[in-house]
Amino acid sequence: MPAPSTSPALPGAVCVLGLGLIGGSLLRALAGTAPVFGWNRSEATVEAARANGHDVSADLAATVRRAADTDAVIVLATPVTTLSGLVAAVAEHAPGNLLTDVVSVKEAVRRIVTAQHPAARFVGGHPMAGTSHSGWSATDPELFRGAMWMVSTGDGTDAADWLRVASIALATGATVVPAADDAHDRAVAAISHLPHLMAAATAVVGAGESGLALRLAAGSFRDGTRVAGTAPALQRAMLEANDAALLNVLSEAIDRLTDVRDDLRDRGSVEILVGDGHRARLAYEAIASGPLQPISGVTVGDHGWQEELRRQAHAGRVWLG
Amino acid sequence: MPAPSTSPALPGAVCVLGLGLIGGSLLRALAGTAPVFGWNRSEATVEAARANGHDVSADLAATVRRAADTDAVIVLATPVTTLSGLVAAVAEHAPGNLLTDVVSVKEAVRRIVTAQHPAARFVGGHPMAGTSHSGWSATDPELFRGAMWMVSTGDGTDAADWLRVASIALATGATVVPAADDAHDRAVAAISHLPHLMAAATAVVGAGESGLALRLAAGSFRDGTRVAGTAPALQRAMLEANDAALLNVLSEAIDRLTDVRDDLRDRGSVEILVGDGHRARLAYEAIASGPLQPISGVTVGDHGWQEELRRQAHAGRVWLG
Repeated sequence: MPAPSTSPALPGAVCVLGLGLIGGSLLRALAGTAPVFGWNRSEATVEAARANGHDVSADLAATVRRAADTDAVIVLATPVTTLSGLVAAVAEHAPGNLLTDVVSVKEAVRRIVTAQHPAARFVGGHPMAGTSHSGWSATDPELFRGAMWMVSTGDGTDAADWLRVASIALATGATVVPAADDAHDRAVAAISHLPHLMAAATAVVGAGESGLALRLAAGSFRDGTRVAGTAPALQRAMLEANDAALLNVLSEAIDRLTDVRDDLRDRGSVEILVGDGHRARLAYEAIASGPLQPISGVTVGDHGWQEELRRQAHAGRVWLG
Repeated sequence: MPAPSTSPALPGAVCVLGLGLIGGSLLRALAGTAPVFGWNRSEATVEAARANGHDVSADLAATVRRAADTDAVIVLATPVTTLSGLVAAVAEHAPGNLLTDVVSVKEAVRRIVTAQHPAARFVGGHPMAGTSHSGWSATDPELFRGAMWMVSTGDGTDAADWLRVASIALATGATVVPAADDAHDRAVAAISHLPHLMAAATAVVGAGESGLALRLAAGSFRDGTRVAGTAPALQRAMLEANDAALLNVLSEAIDRLTDVRDDLRDRGSVEILVGDGHRARLAYEAIASGPLQPISGVTVGDHGWQEELRRQAHAGRVWLG
């Protein structure tokens, strides 16, 4: 095992499987920094990426074998519903390679990896970046700059593997947030998956009212429904893979809305929810616009480093390398 | 009665009562275009507006008497909870003046006007513009450019009065949307007031999860909770004054969220809501980003002009003067 270190190695070679918004942006972000190559199922995407000067292929087995030959970190970057085949190819052609992913749920991905490739060296990840657009044409090498990038940090996570995955995030300009898979899934259910359902419900009610309503719609509707414009298949793959955590926060949201409906009907008041919502938004703004609070006093590889990283990240701190 | 006309007169003198975000921005937008003066309860705001070169006062009675002397249109621009006293002053000092407002509900304002000043020449209005900031320091003379400005259009609305109120909206760069008061209130319940409650509930659930969750929060949470940052007193005044219409759309939203919770729990699927939400968002985008569809074939003042304007506006058309 390599000596513990607080500063990550450069990522070395990176192989990106799937060149949609996230995978394609990652390929472009790393180009010039690391030897990076990729695969995509669609020939049209491969041709578009090649036309932009990138080293990509539509041959999965050949791409994964090349990852084995070059000791590349393999990044799974397709929707969760299509991961199984990719992981099976890795198990067959590059069983010893370090594997990570950029998928928006972590427990479901781990179950797929464990089923297809029980011996995988796997450290999951999730960059908190995206737009409501998708596909190669929406990719942006600057997509991850300033974004939070969760890196799976379990009790059994290997320090050198963790540092290498973290170095990919840092190389794109992102900031690393260590978390356990289940804590991550609960967090993103609350701050990403629930907002998709709230946006959809808001959009449906507005559009069901009248053309007049959509004509009058301004900032609150525009911003509050933006993510409802994301491709439905991508939203479904993301939300349905996190069903248990999403059910919890969805029930909470329904409870809050039911409470305010009762308050409004019985007392003509929205005071409690509006007041709580305002305080919650200010708490978010304080974290989002304040300076990054670095995780401190722990060296990756020390005894118990995983638990200490998670503990500090749970309070909102980040790992800056 | 003046001859019917399709093109509005210039607004003439305008008196703005209340110099917060909307009233203050209106004063600034009209300055240079129309003789405009204003009133605000707070001496600090009056001093700030004077320092910016505006003709404003903290003396309500004197300001309203000046409006009577100059035949100014009087614009009510304070929260609905504080309108009564303003309307009483108008009834006392300028009973013959044309009166309008910029408040986000129309039936509640009409009730207050009728109670305090039964003989008022009143044509309500509502510019669909705002930010989550408030007060004179947040005002912006360009706030209304490109915005939709609803102008109350009832069966008894006087054509010349309607045209003069519409001309104020046009002078700020806004586009006029004619509507009945009740249709307006249902529309804004759906596309403005409901989004405030959805934003608040989303913010509360996110902030209740963990510091990790707020740290990971990205675009969907930021945009989906933005309006929860509006001053709670302003949100309450706006939402509670539209309680009947808001209760209807809130119940609809709760029903949709309850349906998707059942689908997710029983079938692991969010397909229906996500699909409907996506179509609804595209319908909104088509209206919001498409060219303005002008109301055509009707002259303000013709027999039945009010009904014809409302009919076309209900389908999303606008009045361009």
